Amino acid sequence: MKTFLDCYPCLLKVGLTAGRKASASEAQQIAIMHQSLEVLHSIDPALTPPEIAYLILKIAAEVTGDGDPYREDKHRSTEQALDLYPHMQALIAKAEDPLDTAIRISIAGNIIDFAAADDFDLWGTVERVLAAPYAVDDRPAFMETLDQAKDILYLADNAGETVFDRLLIETINAEYGKPVTYVIKSGPILNDATLEDAVQADLDKIATAIIETGSDTQGTILSRCSKAFRERFDRADMVIAKGQANYETLNEAGSKVFLLLQAKCPVLGRDAGAPVGGVILSQASERQPGG
Amino acid sequence: MKTFLDCYPCLLKVGLTAGRKASASEAQQIAIMHQSLEVLHSIDPALTPPEIAYLILKIAAEVTGDGDPYREDKHRSTEQALDLYPHMQALIAKAEDPLDTAIRISIAGNIIDFAAADDFDLWGTVERVLAAPYAVDDRPAFMETLDQAKDILYLADNAGETVFDRLLIETINAEYGKPVTYVIKSGPILNDATLEDAVQADLDKIATAIIETGSDTQGTILSRCSKAFRERFDRADMVIAKGQANYETLNEAGSKVFLLLQAKCPVLGRDAGAPVGGVILSQASERQPGG
Repeated sequence: MKTFLDCYPCLLKVGLTAGRKASASEAQQIAIMHQSLEVLHSIDPALTPPEIAYLILKIAAEVTGDGDPYREDKHRSTEQALDLYPHMQALIAKAEDPLDTAIRISIAGNIIDFAAADDFDLWGTVERVLAAPYAVDDRPAFMETLDQAKDILYLADNAGETVFDRLLIETINAEYGKPVTYVIKSGPILNDATLEDAVQADLDKIATAIIETGSDTQGTILSRCSKAFRERFDRADMVIAKGQANYETLNEAGSKVFLLLQAKCPVLGRDAGAPVGGVILSQASERQPGG
Repeated sequence: MKTFLDCYPCLLKVGLTAGRKASASEAQQIAIMHQSLEVLHSIDPALTPPEIAYLILKIAAEVTGDGDPYREDKHRSTEQALDLYPHMQALIAKAEDPLDTAIRISIAGNIIDFAAADDFDLWGTVERVLAAPYAVDDRPAFMETLDQAKDILYLADNAGETVFDRLLIETINAEYGKPVTYVIKSGPILNDATLEDAVQADLDKIATAIIETGSDTQGTILSRCSKAFRERFDRADMVIAKGQANYETLNEAGSKVFLLLQAKCPVLGRDAGAPVGGVILSQASERQPGG
């Protein structure tokens, strides 16, 4: 997804917020704001929002000297999600359609997003997403692809959301007997899950393997990922990709890619055809000619 | 009130939104965004938000060639408010404390603000504000000043809100027998009331006079107002000033100034000591030394 002009105000916030998380002084906050304005003024408008956010978050990291200001938030999010784990597991166990319930729970977990808000009603979101109609519903294609798939990659989004992912992976294991490889970022960016966060959520015990993208950008910008990961991505016959940044970077990555998320802003909502808060399970398209 | 770093994202939106109201092409929208970024990068941080918004709104006007993109919104807001006028009049007529009810209704009208949102639940806001506790409550000083006042200026904010102002002015006339001069902007800026809007709301029949600030900035930046208006302002012994921009520009203009508004953003809320949506009747302070 390209960066729309409506994304600029949010992009201007992301560095300031990360800087404050890192206890930036007033002078440091001003420096972050000024350099963020310069980035927005000079960027290639063909970049996706995560590519621009990356530049701005690196400014905040350089100015404050703290490249991982969300580490405590990430740890706490995972703890909160783990507290809910048995309750969500029980919901799936008694569900008429366990896979659909697990998909919805995985999407509910996408509410944990420090780029969009600073706190979340986790259980309230689970209940809402379980009851909501899908705003974008490519479940038939998802089921068909899952039926055929032998090699499934699951691209993580945020720490804490990992616990919700784990429930979907456990359900895929149990219902379809299919192994799933879990993919995390190679370095900290916002509250995106890194290896430490995935291990805190016990993904190492559930997934066939945990591998890294080779990149520390939000979403999955294949050109910035390691060669090893790109080959792994190409080889997979199904990719389940979580969250808004993966939507923004992979929504034209081909029909084996499925984007599971909540629309957390009106710009993405318009692009995906969903209201804010809408539950999205969207099959990616093939890249547009010239796109 | 100074401009906080948190104001920057909103200021970046204001030009784009005004440009779109004026049917800006994609290229014009990009030009507005780029020039807005330049303004934010180069401004004197001591300016108030309305002073910066003015620069950005003038960019949108220059790029699109439309200096009054909100004229239809203004007209429609006034019509909608006029529809509610008899109902609000009835509420005041049967109120135990008609002045307090009229003050609250005047503050409720401050929800009409195209800088903050694109549509409003007018009657819902009236009911909410009538029932809400004041977040900032300088009514005792307001009453005392009103008791003594001989020459009252009432600084308008937005078109449509004018109808709500009219009810407060009518109540001051009826309960206190005091004449009130109504003050509007000298030219269009966002949806701020100009002479035409005040006349559409029949303020010319209620106020002693309608006068202009001599400026087309939001709020009341005295240094940019006409000499005639500044003298009139100095001479008045009570100033009732409506809305967020008047708060931002007059909150240190002295104890005869009373700011009536709803906090429509967290930055102003923090400054005033009110939550977002909070009902504010605040006596301005004397200008800080060096401020």
